[in-house]
Formats: sequence, C-alpha cells, structure tokens
Amino acid sequence: MMSKKIIVIGGSAAGPKAAAKARRMDEFAEITMFQKGPDLSMASCGFPYFVGGFFDDRNKLLCTPTGVVRDPKFYWNAKGIVAKVNTEITRIDRKNKQVEFTDLVTGEKGSQPYDKLIISTGATANMPPIPGSDLDGITNLQSMQDADYLRRIRDDGKIKKAVVIGGGLIGIETLEALHLAGIELTMIELLPQLLTFLDWKMAKLVQNYLKTKANVITKNGVAEFKGKDGKLTGVKLQNGTEIPCELAVVAIGVRPNVALAKEALLEIGSLGGITVNEYMQTSDPDIYAVGDCCEIKNIITGKHVLAPYGDLANLEGRVAGENVIKGNKATFPGTIQTGICKLFDYGIGITGLSETKAKEAGIDYVKVINASPDKPGFMDGKMLITKLVAEKDTGKILGAQCIGPGDVSKQLAIWATAIKGNLKVEDMVNADLPYAPPFSLAIDHSIASAHILQNKMQGIFKGVSGLEVMDKINNNEDVFLLDVRGADEYEQTRLGLGETLIPLGALRTRIGEMPEDKNKEIITYCKISLRGYEAAVLLKAHGYINVKVLEGGITAWPFEKEK
Amino acid sequence: MMSKKIIVIGGSAAGPKAAAKARRMDEFAEITMFQKGPDLSMASCGFPYFVGGFFDDRNKLLCTPTGVVRDPKFYWNAKGIVAKVNTEITRIDRKNKQVEFTDLVTGEKGSQPYDKLIISTGATANMPPIPGSDLDGITNLQSMQDADYLRRIRDDGKIKKAVVIGGGLIGIETLEALHLAGIELTMIELLPQLLTFLDWKMAKLVQNYLKTKANVITKNGVAEFKGKDGKLTGVKLQNGTEIPCELAVVAIGVRPNVALAKEALLEIGSLGGITVNEYMQTSDPDIYAVGDCCEIKNIITGKHVLAPYGDLANLEGRVAGENVIKGNKATFPGTIQTGICKLFDYGIGITGLSETKAKEAGIDYVKVINASPDKPGFMDGKMLITKLVAEKDTGKILGAQCIGPGDVSKQLAIWATAIKGNLKVEDMVNADLPYAPPFSLAIDHSIASAHILQNKMQGIFKGVSGLEVMDKINNNEDVFLLDVRGADEYEQTRLGLGETLIPLGALRTRIGEMPEDKNKEIITYCKISLRGYEAAVLLKAHGYINVKVLEGGITAWPFEKEK
Ligand SMILES: Cc1cc2nc3c(=O)[nH]c(=O)nc-3n(C[C@H](O)[C@H](O)[C@H](O)COP(=O)(O)OP(=O)(O)OC[C@H]3O[C@@H](n4cnc5c(N)ncnc54)[C@H](O)[C@@H]3O)c2cc1C
Ligand SMILES: Cc1cc2nc3c(=O)[nH]c(=O)nc-3n(C[C@H](O)[C@H](O)[C@H](O)COP(=O)(O)OP(=O)(O)OC[C@H]3O[C@@H](n4cnc5c(N)ncnc54)[C@H](O)[C@@H]3O)c2cc1C
Ligand SMILES: CC(C)(COP(=O)(O)OP(=O)(O)OC[C@H]1O[C@@H](n2cnc3c(N)ncnc32)[C@H](O)[C@@H]1OP(=O)(O)O)[C@@H](O)C(=O)NCCC(=O)NCCS
Ligand SMILES: CC(C)(COP(=O)(O)OP(=O)(O)OC[C@H]1O[C@@H](n2cnc3c(N)ncnc32)[C@H](O)[C@@H]1OP(=O)(O)O)[C@@H](O)C(=O)NCCC(=O)NCCS
Ligand SMILES: [Ca+2]
Ligand SMILES: [Ca+2]
Repeated sequence: MMSKKIIVIGGSAAGPKAAAKARRMDEFAEITMFQKGPDLSMASCGFPYFVGGFFDDRNKLLCTPTGVVRDPKFYWNAKGIVAKVNTEITRIDRKNKQVEFTDLVTGEKGSQPYDKLIISTGATANMPPIPGSDLDGITNLQSMQDADYLRRIRDDGKIKKAVVIGGGLIGIETLEALHLAGIELTMIELLPQLLTFLDWKMAKLVQNYLKTKANVITKNGVAEFKGKDGKLTGVKLQNGTEIPCELAVVAIGVRPNVALAKEALLEIGSLGGITVNEYMQTSDPDIYAVGDCCEIKNIITGKHVLAPYGDLANLEGRVAGENVIKGNKATFPGTIQTGICKLFDYGIGITGLSETKAKEAGIDYVKVINASPDKPGFMDGKMLITKLVAEKDTGKILGAQCIGPGDVSKQLAIWATAIKGNLKVEDMVNADLPYAPPFSLAIDHSIASAHILQNKMQGIFKGVSGLEVMDKINNNEDVFLLDVRGADEYEQTRLGLGETLIPLGALRTRIGEMPEDKNKEIITYCKISLRGYEAAVLLKAHGYINVKVLEGGITAWPFEKEK
Repeated sequence: MMSKKIIVIGGSAAGPKAAAKARRMDEFAEITMFQKGPDLSMASCGFPYFVGGFFDDRNKLLCTPTGVVRDPKFYWNAKGIVAKVNTEITRIDRKNKQVEFTDLVTGEKGSQPYDKLIISTGATANMPPIPGSDLDGITNLQSMQDADYLRRIRDDGKIKKAVVIGGGLIGIETLEALHLAGIELTMIELLPQLLTFLDWKMAKLVQNYLKTKANVITKNGVAEFKGKDGKLTGVKLQNGTEIPCELAVVAIGVRPNVALAKEALLEIGSLGGITVNEYMQTSDPDIYAVGDCCEIKNIITGKHVLAPYGDLANLEGRVAGENVIKGNKATFPGTIQTGICKLFDYGIGITGLSETKAKEAGIDYVKVINASPDKPGFMDGKMLITKLVAEKDTGKILGAQCIGPGDVSKQLAIWATAIKGNLKVEDMVNADLPYAPPFSLAIDHSIASAHILQNKMQGIFKGVSGLEVMDKINNNEDVFLLDVRGADEYEQTRLGLGETLIPLGALRTRIGEMPEDKNKEIITYCKISLRGYEAAVLLKAHGYINVKVLEGGITAWPFEKEK
C-alpha cells in the first residue's frame, strides 16, 4: 500500500495543526508543510505581548511548552513532518494533483504531488490605498517580521510618537504594546466607534477608558502619510488635521489569502474567503482549507462569515487533519465569533450576536446591561459591564458583550458555552456555578445579568439606555431623573443633568417629593442601577406608571458627567 | 385588601434574599425577618478571608457594595423589611399560622402571625462527640462569632500551633486563614482522603500541595481533646498519637437546622433536611424553606442532596421570595453541586459528578485527566489538572473536577454551563471560547480536555491512571514504562520506577530499542502526557498492540517520585 501524500500550504497555526493531526491519524503518510517565511508555528496572537515587553525571548513565540523551538528539525523529529520554510507555493495544479513551489532563498522551483491538499494560507493585513504608504515607519502587526520590527523599536527607544490606524482587536492590542514601550499614541478610527463588533455604547465605554492612556480620534480616516527623506513624519487625516508621528501601525483588518485557490478555480465565497463545507473541504474534494483563508458558518445566523481567530484556526486544522486521512469523519460546526482582547487593566470581548447583529439578522430580541463587580468588595472585586442579548419569545441567549477590569474571560466563556447549549435566560437564572469569594459573587455576575434580563422580560424592570436618556434631554423631553445614591456618592460623581437626589433608603418617607403627576416619565439610577431598580419598583407600587431604570447606572454612562 | 404577612426565620443569606425579593414583588406586604444572632446578612463565605487578614474591617462582611452595613435600620429604610435581631423563633404554630419568638436580650417572648412563612434557619456545624469538647480553644468557623474569635487569635498573635479537624472545603479554607496568621498547622482527616467530593487522585494531588504548607494526617480521627486548666493543650488521635496545639477548629460538616420544622411536623428528608418541592415549598403550602436547612434535587441523578452553598441559598431565596407573593410561579431546578475553594495558590473545585458519584449512580461513564496550562508560557501560564467524566454511550458531560494554580474558576464555570446545556464531549471539542494569550491557550484547557476524552472514546488514546500503574508495579507486572521527555527534563524530575527514557523526537529512529514483544504492555508518558500520547500513537502504528498513556503524566502523578 502506497503511503498517502499530504501537502499543507502555510505553517503558522491552522496548517501545522492539520499536519500534526494528520500524522497522528496516519503514522505512514508523507506529510509536507510549506511555509513562505523563515519561521514556523508562530503564535501571532502573542506578537503584541512580545512587542509590549511581557517577555523578551522571541523564541517563546515559536516553542513548545517545554521550550523546544518548532523548527523544521523539530517537525521532522517529533512529528515526522517535512516542513519546508522559505518556500512559497506558487500554484495548485489540480489536474495533476500537485503543487508548484519556489525556494525563496535559492530561487529554485519544483513541484510535488499530493493525494490530499490542505490550504492554510492565512490572511494579509489591509493597507489603505493612500499616498505615502511606502515610507519608512509604516507597518502592520501581522507577520513575525512585523513583530521583530516593532520590538526593535521598543528596544531602541528612539521613537516618541506613533499612531495606530484602526480600532479593532489588533489595533487595540498594538496600542497597548506601544504604550508600554513608552511611546505617545494616537488611535485613529474611520468609523464612529472603535471595536465595531461591540455595540456602540460598549465601545464608547472602552473608548472612554482608552482616552486615559492615548489620544483617540474617531469618524476620521487617514488621508495621507507625510514623510521626509523617505521617513514617516506624520499622518494627515481626512478632515485635514495633521498628527506628527514617526511610526504608524495599520490595523484596519485582514483579507483572506486566496490567490492560489482562486487561480485553481476553487469556489470563493462572497466575503472573499475560500468556501468550505462542514468537513473543511473546498469545492475540490481532495482539497481542504482551514484558518483565516476560509469562510465559515456563523452558528446562530447560519450565514457565512470571516472569523480570523487563532483558536478556530487550530480547531479547523484538527478537523481537516483527521478528514484528509480518515475521509470525512470530523465536522466543524462553525463559529459564534467569540473574541476577547486585553487593554491594560480591561478585558474586552463578545460572544454570539451583538444587538446590532441581532437587528441585522432580523431577530426579535431583548437585551440588558449589567454593571456589577466580579467578586465581593472584601476580595477586591473589579467592575464588569455586560450586555446580554436574547431572543424575545424564547429567551434563548444570542450574545453577550463584556468589558471592564473584572474577570471578563470567565463571563464570556460562560455565555459562549450557554449559547452552545442553546440555553435560555431562565436556565441561567438558576445556574449552579462555582462560588467562593476569591472567584465570584454569591450570585455570579453572569447569573445577575440573567436575573436582570428576566426581570425585564417579565416587565418588572423597564430599562433605558444612556443614549436614550441623552436624546430625551437633548429633545427637552419632560423627564424626572432620580438619582437614589447616598449624598456622599453624589458629591463624588454625578451626571449633572438636573437630576433629583433622593437616596433609596429615604425614598419611602420622601415619596411626597416626587412629581405629583403619576404619568410623568421617571428615570431612576444609582451607581450600577441596582438601587435604581429597587426605587423604580417602589415608585411603580405607588402608582407611577412610567418609571424606567437607567441600565448600568452611572458606571455604564457613556457620556461626560458633571463630575 | 389586607397586606400580606410574610415572616422569614433566619437573616443571613437565603432569608434576606427571600425577604428582599418578596418586597420587590409586593411593596405593601408586611415582611419581618427574625435573626437569632446580633448580625444580619453575614457573608459567611468570607469568614476565612477575614480571619486570614485579606481585609481587616469586619463590616465588610456585612455591608452592601457601597459600604452600608445591612443592619435593621438599613433593612427598614432601604428594603422596608422589619429585621429583628437577637430574636429566636422558638416555635412554628401551623394551626394558628403564627410563630413564637424570644428576644434573647430581654428574654421577652411573643408571637406573630404569618400568611406565608419562609424557613431559612441554615445549618449547624458538627462537633465530634468526644471527651474534652468543652475546653477553651475549640471552635468551628460557622458563625460570625466564630469568625470574630479566630480573627482575635490572629490579631493577638499568641497561638503557635493549631489543628484543623476535617479536610472539607471549610477546613481547607480555615487552614489557609490560620496559616496566614502565622500559626503552625496540622490537618486531621478521618477518611482516607481530603475533600471527599473529589476523586481520590485529585484529592491526593491537593494533599501533596497542602503538605508544603502544613502537616496532613489522613485515615485518623481525633479521639480526645486534651487540656489543662480548661484550656486545650493538644488532641489525641484514634491511633494514640498526640498533637500539641492550643487551638482546634472543627470542620467536619454541617447538619440542617430543622428542629422548628420537625416540631411543626413538616416533612423532613432522609438526609435530615426539610423536604421542599421545586417551588421551595414544604409539605405545608404556606411554608417555604430555603438554604442550608433543606434538601434539594441533584439535577443529574435526580436524587435529593444536602447542598449547603451560599450561591444556592441566594437563588433558592429568590425563588421562594417570588412564590410567597405571586403563588408558585418561580421554580428552582436543583443543583449540580458545583463548589470551589482556594488554597493558597491553588483553586480546587468540582461541578457535576465525580467518578465515584457516577459509579454510585450506576452510570456507565468514561473519564480522562488533562494536565496542561491555562495560558501560554509567554504569558506566565499556570498548570491546571482537570478530570472530566462523561456518559459512555452519549458522551454527555457528567462532571468535571479541576485543581491547580491556573484559572480553575473559569474551567468549572464552563463545565457547569456545559452540564446545564446537556452538552456532549463532541460539542465541547469545537467550542468557540474567548481566546487571547492573556486569558487562555489557543486551544483552551477545557477544549483540550474534551479533545483527549474524545480521543479516548474513539479508542485513539488508551489511558491509565497513576494508581493503576502503581498497582502494576506493586504486583510486579511486566510493564514497559516509557518516558518520552528530554534528557534535561529527566534529570530534573522523574518517577524512578525502572522506566526507559527515549525522547519523543528520537523515538522514530530509536524504535529498535523498544521491547521486541509487540504484545508487551507499554505505558508512555511525559510531563503532562501530550508527548506521551504522541509516542503511544506512534508505537501502535508500529504494531505494538498494548500501549497506554499515563494520564496527566508526571504532573498528575500522585505518589512519591525518585526526584
Ligand atoms: C497581532 C495579532 C494578534 C492576534 N490575536 C489574536 C487573539 O488574541 N485571538 C485570536 O483568536 N486570534 C488572534 N489573532 C489571529 C490569529 O493569529 C489568526 O487567526 C491565526 O494565526 C490564523 O492562522 P492561519 O494558519 O489560518 O493563518 P496564518 O497564521 O496567517 O498563517 C498562514 C501562513 O501561511 C503562509 N503562506 C501564505 N501563503 C503561502 C504560500 N503561497 N506558500 C507558503 N506559505 C504561505 C504565511 O506566510 C503564513 O505564515 C491575532 C493575529 C495577529 C496578527
Ligand atoms: C466558613 C464558611 C465558608 C463558606 N464558604 C462558602 C463558599 O465559598 N461557597 C459557598 O457556596 N458556600 C460557602 N459556605 C456556605 C454558605 O455560607 C451557606 O451555604 C449559606 O450561608 C447558607 O445560607 P442560609 O441562609 O441557608 O443559612 P445561614 O447562613 O446559616 O443562616 C441561617 C441563619 O438563621 C439563624 N437562625 C437559625 N435558627 C433560627 C431561629 N430559630 N430563629 C432565628 N434565627 C435563626 C442563624 O442564626 C443564621 O444566622 C461557607 C460557609 C462557611 C461557614
Ligand atoms: C501546536 C501545533 C504545532 C499543533 O500541533 P499538535 O501536535 O496538534 O499540538 P497540541 O499541543 O495542540 O496537541 C497535541 C495532541 O495532544 C493532545 N493533548 C494535549 N494535551 C494533552 C494532555 N495533557 N494529555 C494527553 N494529550 C494531550 C491534544 O488533544 C492533541 O491531540 P489531538 O489533536 O489528536 O486531540 C500548531 O497548533 C501550532 O503550530 N501552533 C502554534 C501557533 C498557533 O497556534 N497560532 C495561533 C494562535 S496564536
Ligand atoms: C444581599 C441580600 C440582602 C439580598 O438582597 P437583594 O435586595 O436581593 O440584593 P441583591 O444585591 O442581590 O440584588 C437586588 C436586585 O437587584 C438586581 N440587580 C443586581 N445588579 C443589578 C444591576 N446592575 N442593575 C439592575 N439590577 C440589578 C438583582 O437581580 C436583584 O433583583 P431580583 O432578585 O429581583 O432579580 C442577601 O442576599 C444577603 O443578605 N446576602 C449577604 C449574605 C450572603 O449572601 N451570604 C452567602 C454567601 S457568603
Ligand atoms: Ca474564539
Ligand atoms: Ca455553586
């Protein structure tokens, strides 16, 4: 029996995973992995932390947990995989079932036959088509070379001012990294908000936090890179403003590398990624595609999406690695587009649908904001702000966004698993999670989020967002804003929108100070709107019929405050 | 319309939650909460952290997130609830629908009528019925008074030696607290293992860690407290050993406080807790019971259990609080007995069934150990050891135990939610969790656990436990132990059971050094048995038909090592 010939194009994440899994499925297959660049198995997701100085040894990005660099020697010895670095696949010859390659060092060309081919060519970072893009000092953070370049800038310590263009996950992480390198930063985002996968308010809260670390410009793109002697000196924005800087990192998204696939006439999806079925198989049954280069299914909407995430790349690779050997046994169900990033003390992330996406998908939804800590005060609990979205009729969880200095990762992991399990709000209301004070509140933040949304669904809690309140104020609507915090809290910070302060503990006795008109619109709140909710319940019991709670209270207020 | 009269017995966790929820459901109900002791709303779960000096202000155990102590004044002002402290309910008079009480300060007695009654009398810590129990220096850590007592001991700094009797959650937490107070400690456990809700091996790994901080004695109970001048001077064990100590904290479990309920002829379950239905209603439709005093359903087995957990107390209270007002609307589904505790750098916990419990329940199960980090090495990842148990035929997740310095809380939260969602191993294999290097590995530890269990279920991975290996060694069975780590790792630490070292990267070329007999039992391993697994796959491909992997490798090895 001839041994199976497996070729993998791309040696970073999805490719190596597929190759390694294929090896475990068949010890005698001939497995060759081609990699354009000099390095293999780069933890791209770790680039920002290398640049930011969380560690200094570049090899940590490339090595196994026990410290062995995953170079061709490692791949051969430990995995029995031939890894050809500095070697680019230039063509997929489907007719003859072979690939053509060029050794980028020697220029030598060759071809190699396959029985099964796995494409894992990844994605390329976008560059804006504007003047000056070829100046020195403009880069992405996409390749190991980019990481090396930015790390050198850190080590040299010469650059004083930089801009990051694009406020997505990678832009945010890069900003942190460069900030930690002592560089003064400006974040420039063309759209009205950073982190467009979040709903506006959540992104605004991140932006408010980011402003404490860097300049942030939104609704304004870069029109031109300015330079002198071939070196970047500044960027000119679409509104004419010029920002002096010696470094610009462009992080305006990535696009799938599909040139080879296109040329080979494999089916490409409408979003520009390679089309695959649930087996990660392309339109050619002998060719699989995995990772950033392909489109996958969003499990909730059923629609195809680009989901350039390292975890998915690995999982898809594992599926394809099995299937090229065993036939189509393993399936990849798709994504719920769970993503997270760190920004200094903040965790920021989402799983499932945002409100915007739920709306786009035409789903009838309910949603809520919960601002509350992750742990008890006596254990130094940190604030979390969660926005939870669920299907209106069924209460099925559709998505959760979470930001803040608290344990965001656990919250998102809970919701991602809840979505996987088709759980409803009512299921999460009595979830039995691990509780002890070093780890959570007695009622975990996730469960509290479910409680509040349940209250909303039952009509006990009528919420209003900061944006809606601001609109009402701007439209001079006749609303009665009731702050029910303590006087001391009011002295420390307050909205300053003409609100009335009656602490919750005094509301029952001071209810006479409320408007006489029981139809009047009243909006209650406190620091997080827990007491605000209790006040609203109380007022409703006393006949006020139009009482709403400002969701998330002052903590989730996205606008300027009086103090 | 007369306002509804609600009485709540017990003012710590479940009681206040029920009272507060009832108030939100009905602003005009008359709600009275009786509390035997002087304090209300004590965060008992925080006692160990107060004793251990994580914070110094006792009020932090009693206050709202904004620092207001939940005393009777707070309850009246903020919640409209009459909270009577230092007042014991002495009898429930079902016929006249009233309770009888005694003011423990004045001795005054009285009675008060109810429409609906909520019993939340909690539990009492057990004391061993042995001589000397009345000596000074013997305590539980159950009440606020116990916490004050132990905190004073910390502050006085006089006590040098203490024993903790009982190696359950509270015993473990108390040991940490007293250790942080600078006291030399001995943990004494009657049973063969600590933390009996864990399987033996997991508990043993905790014990090995605990030994670096304290003396640990298992399979040995306390027979007698020894004293002088009324003060504790030591404990005598069942095997005759005497351990000198000035303080003994007894943490050998709690029993539900059901005297009132019993006397009122409410139905009591076989485990000694008050019987309630899914509405948290007792055998008397006008009486509800919540928290530690009642029995609830284990969702997986359908059996009644005692689940004295603060989170459940709150959730049950919330259900009863709604039902006493609205009629039986809200339901409490039961528990999967999720619990967690901190022991210095370790998190330790379980959700769902252990292997022991699955066996007891007569369920056909599969299980696996995964030892691997929570985050990448370059982000200072910490080790986690997970034991995952699933139903054999369906792969439905039954339970997960997790221990180690890594992020245990997130792992358990994921598994608890997976169990809630009836998820199977195959669902978790391609879960879409939040991945970024500061928070997880590209393949999260939970997903890796699912991968390994999937491999086992598919027969690709044949596991063996440390205990089984030790049995084989002790029985002089003819096994070939193959350590596939690097030579440097072998020099640092090794089992020393006559194993052969062939690093994975050399195994393909040195396969000739393996036993000639292809039927020979071979057990492979490495630090965590990832490479061990790859070695096993390789050997099987070369015709060895009896190859097993030591699950969790050296990291999960529960016995002494050569070095
Ligand atoms: C800075 C940064 C931070 C990130 N952070 C996160 C994060 O926190 N969480 C997360 O989930 N994801 C993150 N990602 C995304 C994640 O890294 C990618 O999703 C993942 O690397 C995709 O893997 P892949 O194998 O599909 O593609 P890639 O990793 O891009 O690898 C493709 C490889 O194929 C090679 N190649 C392409 N064409 C050819 C050819 N013709 N011949 C030979 N070789 C070729 C390329 O050179 C490249 O090495 C981050 C990415 C970056 C850049
Ligand atoms: C040290 C310690 C650590 C813990 N750690 C955790 C943890 O990390 N996680 C977790 O989930 N759980 C933990 N628990 C358990 C948790 O505290 C309990 O499950 C929870 O407090 C139970 O709430 P309850 O209201 O049912 O009972 P309790 O909190 O015991 O309250 C009952 C109250 O009723 C009063 N009472 C009793 N009888 C009468 C009467 N006749 N008249 C008037 N009042 C009466 C009692 O005095 C008591 O104040 C811990 C417990 C302790 C002691
Ligand atoms: C690591 C890499 C080479 C894949 O190779 P791999 O051999 O599949 O490596 P892994 O360590 O993931 O796992 C190996 C096997 O051991 C298993 N395993 C993991 N921990 C184990 C343990 N404690 N015990 C037993 N088996 C274990 C895994 O399940 C896997 O087996 P399976 O896929 O057959 O189920 C590839 O993912 C890579 O190059 N990664 C680096 C870059 C990257 O991931 N970038 C994107 C994110 S930054
Ligand atoms: C706190 C305690 C008094 C209960 O009172 P409570 O009024 O229900 O207090 P909570 O803070 O839990 O929540 C109040 C309400 O606000 C809601 N809420 C919480 N955060 C909110 C937010 N950010 N916005 C709006 N509503 C919020 C809750 O869902 C709850 O409403 P619901 O039960 O009607 O759904 C009681 O649990 C107690 O005494 N606890 C201390 C002791 C203890 O828990 N011990 C055991 C563990 S150590
Ligand atoms: Ca993800
Ligand atoms: Ca629990």
